Parts: sequence; structure tokens; C-alpha cells
Amino acid sequence: MIQRDDILSYIEANKDRFLEELNDLLRIPSVSADPAYKADVQRCAEVVKDRLLESGAAMAEIHSTAGHPIVYAEKIIDPSLPTVLVYGHYDVQPADPVELWDSPPFEPVIKDGKIYARGAADDKGQAYMHVKALEFMTKTNTLPCNVKFMIEGEEEVGSENLGIWVKNNKEKLSADVILISDTSIIANDTPSITVGLRGLSYVEVEVTGPNRDLHSGVYGGAVANPANTLCELIASLKDEDDRITIEGFYDDVEEVSAEDRAEMAKAPFDEEDFKRELKIGATRSENGFSPMEGTSIRPTLDVNGIWSGYIGEGAKTVLPSKAYAKISMRLVPFQSSAKITELFERHLKKIAPDYVQVKVTPHHGGEPIVIPTDFPGYLAASKAMEESFGKTPIPERSGGSIPIVALFEEVLGLKSILLGFSLNSDDIHSPNEHYGVFNYLKGIETIPLFYKHFVEAHQSA
Amino acid sequence: MIQRDDILSYIEANKDRFLEELNDLLRIPSVSADPAYKADVQRCAEVVKDRLLESGAAMAEIHSTAGHPIVYAEKIIDPSLPTVLVYGHYDVQPADPVELWDSPPFEPVIKDGKIYARGAADDKGQAYMHVKALEFMTKTNTLPCNVKFMIEGEEEVGSENLGIWVKNNKEKLSADVILISDTSIIANDTPSITVGLRGLSYVEVEVTGPNRDLHSGVYGGAVANPANTLCELIASLKDEDDRITIEGFYDDVEEVSAEDRAEMAKAPFDEEDFKRELKIGATRSENGFSPMEGTSIRPTLDVNGIWSGYIGEGAKTVLPSKAYAKISMRLVPFQSSAKITELFERHLKKIAPDYVQVKVTPHHGGEPIVIPTDFPGYLAASKAMEESFGKTPIPERSGGSIPIVALFEEVLGLKSILLGFSLNSDDIHSPNEHYGVFNYLKGIETIPLFYKHFVEAHQSA
Repeated sequence: MIQRDDILSYIEANKDRFLEELNDLLRIPSVSADPAYKADVQRCAEVVKDRLLESGAAMAEIHSTAGHPIVYAEKIIDPSLPTVLVYGHYDVQPADPVELWDSPPFEPVIKDGKIYARGAADDKGQAYMHVKALEFMTKTNTLPCNVKFMIEGEEEVGSENLGIWVKNNKEKLSADVILISDTSIIANDTPSITVGLRGLSYVEVEVTGPNRDLHSGVYGGAVANPANTLCELIASLKDEDDRITIEGFYDDVEEVSAEDRAEMAKAPFDEEDFKRELKIGATRSENGFSPMEGTSIRPTLDVNGIWSGYIGEGAKTVLPSKAYAKISMRLVPFQSSAKITELFERHLKKIAPDYVQVKVTPHHGGEPIVIPTDFPGYLAASKAMEESFGKTPIPERSGGSIPIVALFEEVLGLKSILLGFSLNSDDIHSPNEHYGVFNYLKGIETIPLFYKHFVEAHQSA
Repeated sequence: MIQRDDILSYIEANKDRFLEELNDLLRIPSVSADPAYKADVQRCAEVVKDRLLESGAAMAEIHSTAGHPIVYAEKIIDPSLPTVLVYGHYDVQPADPVELWDSPPFEPVIKDGKIYARGAADDKGQAYMHVKALEFMTKTNTLPCNVKFMIEGEEEVGSENLGIWVKNNKEKLSADVILISDTSIIANDTPSITVGLRGLSYVEVEVTGPNRDLHSGVYGGAVANPANTLCELIASLKDEDDRITIEGFYDDVEEVSAEDRAEMAKAPFDEEDFKRELKIGATRSENGFSPMEGTSIRPTLDVNGIWSGYIGEGAKTVLPSKAYAKISMRLVPFQSSAKITELFERHLKKIAPDYVQVKVTPHHGGEPIVIPTDFPGYLAASKAMEESFGKTPIPERSGGSIPIVALFEEVLGLKSILLGFSLNSDDIHSPNEHYGVFNYLKGIETIPLFYKHFVEAHQSA
């Protein structure tokens, strides 16, 4: 029988090793977006597999894909008991701009109670909590149900190959709930559970003007500059109310009721603190919506990267041939990623002036999801956090995307529980990403409690 | 006495060596904008000095500056004779994007009668014609006047140190005319002389949003994205007539008379050919002006570089902290570079929304100039070209800028003759820059004829 005191004692006795094992994982630069790191990503998968076996998995294997491998592991103690399927990812975002890190991104350091490294919070630190929770339950003979692990290496680039693999392995993955730690809580004294995720449409835009770079003195004034044109196209994608101008963009957007909006507005948010912390003079949200609503119940369009012409030191008077942008749109229920990508491309081609050519390449996407708060998985997660934090967690919609969650529901028919422990201020995807030691250990403490409550809830359901 | 036939015989006998010597110069990557090439720039200055001495200069010296060095040389045959001061530059533009070159930018190749290399036309090839013209006149004892050379290494980055050096060396530089080959002719069978140059204001813009890169899912919809904002700011700098919206921008623009515009319109220009050659669907000029006018008598605003966020392979969902652009404005008489730079900065700060901070850093500038067609220098240049091409050259305003020309007039009280031989299609500042062997040799042929006619015109003036 899982007891919180036993977990706490186990953590106390092993926490230095828990941190050291995580640091070993963080030292591997498993950047999935950049082919230069392919061997590191492979090596990371092997380390994850080994650690799962050492921590109590009865079997663990590496599945090759057209991209990076998937680590699968399981421990089936009794087929008649419920099964928890843990999902996580061992790949990380690129570390650029590296020069803005205070310490090297792949040399973890613990400072002021935080682990600084690329992937510390997203998602190595959070995925590894599940491995250590398994260790606790195995070593103390308290694992109350079956467990399966599916840890992938392509979450940061769209999980395309995991999607294929899941479709081909439905039986292997049969379970009762999916458990994921890749989201955040509101604060260390304000636990929360993510009950909504935005979808994503990520595209790359290439604007071509003249067939070669030109001298901006000789040709400027006669030949349209594709960098100026790209700016004009991007600027035109939002109106003065900060609404996206793509035709049909809002057609499928869920209109959240006034009651639900009032409920959400109760979550703690101090706009002055928010502005001070980010050193911005003002927030910017769609007209008629609060900043919190802008990041949860409303879609967005953001330039994630833009480049054209001469970007080195000094000055070069070039009228560039091409200009590029990476643009992502966050989507809300009931928008469809594929449809939005198509609307984007159609709109951009329609508004492109005849002095340029526009090419739109879809990168990856994912569907928005909403998770109910009245099924055994959510109830167990809520009870587990209540026990470990001493407070009932707040159900909260997150602005981020985990594209694979919608696919899990569609293909496996399983709901996911987003039991994350990081903080929005952890700088995931940014220089100096970090994860609190408190949060890492709190996760290892909470997860076995989830298993206990889930088995109970499942049996009484 | 300088005779065209003698020049042609000398060129015929020496042309292989003339090309080989130029190629040696082109092999030195004297990129002034990039500190990584500092030693190469210095080495290039030394080679230029040595070649001047070998080619007949009585003295040659290298003058250090706070930046790259200036090569000065002279041959004074009789102080009572007029003096021609030759100006050129041995520095070159960066070669980026290097991957678009068909052959390495600093390994010159001659193909289809053209020399391909960075700097072939701008300006090593054109500056070196003067060195070889000096060789001819020295070797044949026909130099009809005094000559001074001033070949600098910072033209591509604004000639700031040359400006200081000129102010400090007025006596050394005393002369009757300045002769420069850093412009183009209309076509190999249509000689022209540049009688106007646009000025330049080159600035770098930095837009800062949040104090660090953020996750675009977690923060997108609440925090303004500085890359989107930069696009919006740039887009707003031109109205739908393609007129620049900066307050006061057009206040000092010379309104060219209908007569002069009609005269200019006689220069050969085929818009369909122009579009076909650049593979563009349409030209783009200020409303009410032709493409030719857009590149000569009207000012422009072009993005020469823009960058923000993640620009590597794949996708990264970052809401960047900063976005940058390099922007240049070409100016026409009687705009002032300093005033336009100030208006730009003031305007941008005025329109910047309070969710970003905007910083404007001036790079370099130069004043627009117009050269009269009725003084001995122009008349000599016109006669020289008439003799070498068999056609009277067309006086033409160019869209480019040679910022130092206005300063020569202001500080030394000297007019410049822009006797260039390249073509607009030579891809200067672009991949695959090239210079016709015809044009190189035609320059060497024409320059001594200029000396002959200049001394004649000067004596009869």
C-alpha cells in the first residue's frame, strides 16, 4: 500500500542520486530539430531504456522510426488490474541563442534550488520523475497496477513518427489512462492540472522577389524588396484589434461562455507583476480578452523566426532575392490544424502582390484538446496533488500544445492526464531553462499517489 | 602624345598580364565589414601600393587609420601642369550568401568573357584600370599631367576614416579634378557617364519585447512578439502609393522638372526585358514615377537585412525577445543624410507601441550629388568615351551612392568625374559578381584619352 510518508522517506534517502541521474540525462544534447545531433538523440534513447530497466521495468525496448527512436517499457503485474500508460519525451529544443545562457546548456548546474539545463523542465526532468516513481513502487513492492512507458524523441518537432507508431501498436499500448508530465502548475503553493491545450499550425514562408540579390542603390525604387514585402504580408495578418485576418480563421473557434470565463478569471494573475517580470510596458491581447484568456481560450499567430538579406556585422546594401519566416498559430477547440494550415496558405497566396512569389511549407501541427474533470483519471490526479501539496489543484487551460494528446484520444480512445510540475517561469524553449528541485521531487512524490487513487477510483467506478 | 592606336597595341601586348594581375588582387578577401578579414584588408593595401610603384608611381605609401588603411601614391611631373586625383577602393562587400556562388568568390575565373569574383567590378577591377593606364602612360612617356592616387579600404562601410584623412591632408590632395571608376555604363554599345548619385542613410533597428525568449504557446496571446511588431513598424513606413511615411521625409526632395524627366525618359529601358531578366512579375515604384525614375530621382527605403527568433533547420516555438533590421534609405538632392537619419529615429520612436522598446543605431551615410555637364572634367570624359566607344556617352543619374564624393566637393572643393565601365547586370554586392573583360580593357583604353582631353580642356579653359 502506497503511503506518502514512505515516499518521502525514500526520496530523502535517494535524492542526491535522483538529481545526479537526471543530470546525466541532461548532459546529452538530444536536439531533435537539428540533424547534427542525431547520434546524441539515439544515445539518449538508449540511456532512457537502461534507466527504465534499472528502475523496475520488466522489459524495455527501442523502436526505430523514420526519425528518432521511441523507448517503450512495461511492467505488467496482473492483466486484470488497470494499466497506466506514461508518455514523455527525451528530445529537447535547440539551445540557440547559446550566448544568452549563463552556463552551458548541456552542462547542468544546480543553483538556488534550480537545475539549469536545456530539457531540465521540458521534458527530461518531468519524464524522469515517472522513472523514479516506478523505482519507488518497485523497490517497496507497492506498484498497485500495470504500467507502460512510451518516451519519444520527436515531441519538439511534431511527433509525426510517434503518431504512425501508435497507430501500428494499438494492442501493445492498451491501457486505461495516459499520464503525462509536460505542463506546469500555477505556483509552488498553487497546484493546478492542465485541462486544455492549444493546437498548433506551424508553417514556413518563403517570399521570392528578383532571381538574385541586387544592389539596393542600383535597383531600389524599381524592384520590390521581398524583405519589405514579407513584413507587409505579416503585418496584414492582424487587424487593429489584434484579430487574425485570415479568411475563415475564427469559424470553428469555441466561444467560451461568460460563466466559464468568470470561473477562469478567478485563477491568480497579477498583470503588474507579469509586466515587471518580463520587463514589458504593456501586454498585448486580442481586443476584448484578458492576457490570461489570450494565452488559453483564444488562438494566436506568432513569428517564431524571420530572416533575409545581410545579417552579419556592419552594413551591406543588398536588395535580397528571398525573405523567410517561420510562423506558428496556436489553435483552440474546435479549430483543425490541417484546415488552418490550408487557410493560411490560401490567404497568403491570395494577398501576395504580383512582384513576389510566395511559398508556404507546413512544418507540423496538432489539434487542440479539452480534458473532462469528472472521470477517474482526473479525480485521481486531483486527490494525489491534494495529498502532496495540501491544496486542491485548480483545473487550468494551458496555452501550449502537445500535439500527440489529441491523437492518443483518437487512435487509442484514451484520455490523458496532464500532471505537470514545472512553472511558466522555467524558461522552457529559452536560454537558461531550469526546473526546481522542489518540483522534481514533488513530482516523484505525487506520481505514486496518483497510482494509488487511480486504482481506487477505477475499481469503484 | 597619347594616341588611341598606341594604347590599343599596348593593351593587346599585355592583356594576359593585366588580367592575371587583377586576379591576384581578387584572390585577397578584403571584406571591410567583417573584422575577421582585417589582416586580408591590410595585405590588399600593401599589394595595391606595390603595384602602383611597379606601374609608374614615383612614391606610394600606406596611411593607417582608425579602421582600414588608405593607399596614397603620386607622380608629379610638373607642378605647373594640371593634376588628376584618382579615387578608388580596394575593399569589397561580404560574399554572403556564399552558397549561391557558382565558383568560390575569392577564386576568380574567366568565363564567357567575364571575370567572376567578389570585387571584380566593385571596385578592384575598375580601380586597377587606372593603375594599368598609368603604366601605359609611364612606359610610353606620354603622361601629360600630374597624377595622384587615393585608394581606400572602407568604401563598403561608409568611408568614415577616409573623410577624416581627407580633411587632414588637403594640401597633399590638391588637384584639379577627381577621377573615379565605380559606376556603370548603360550597355557595352551605349556609353554613359554618371552625373548624379543618391545619398544614403543606413540604420540598424533593434526592437525589444520581453526580457528573454519565451515559449510561444505559454505566452503567445498575452505578450507582444517583437518580430511581429518589427514587421508592423516596417510595413507602416510606406503607404499604399509606396511613399515613405516618415514625417518630413520628402521636405527637401528636389522636384525634377517635366522637361528634365522627359529628357531622362529617352535613355533606353525596356520594362519587359527588365522583368524577364530579374524574373519578377511586376516592378514596384513610387506611384507616379517610372522604374527608371524610382532608381534615380526618387528616394527609397529598403530592408537590407532582418532577423529574429529561430532561423535554423526545423521548427522552434519561440516568442523572441528581440528583432533586428538593417534599413537603408537612398536619398536624392537636396536631402541631408544626417537629417533623414534623425527623422527616421524620431518617427520610429514615436510610432513604437508601448509593449516594445526601439533602438536606432546609425551605420553610415552620405549626401546625394549632382555633377554638372559643362566643366572641363565632364567634357574631357565625354570626349574620351566618344573616342574609345565611337559614340557620345549619355549623362545619367545613378541610383547608387558613393558617399565620399559629396565630401570631396565640400572639403577639397573638387568636382568628381564618375567614369565607370561596369554594367548594372554585373551583380555587384550579389553572388556571382563579375566584370567584363571588354569593360576592363575598355577602361584601360579610355582613361589615358581622358588625361589627354582633360589637359587640353584645362589649358583652353
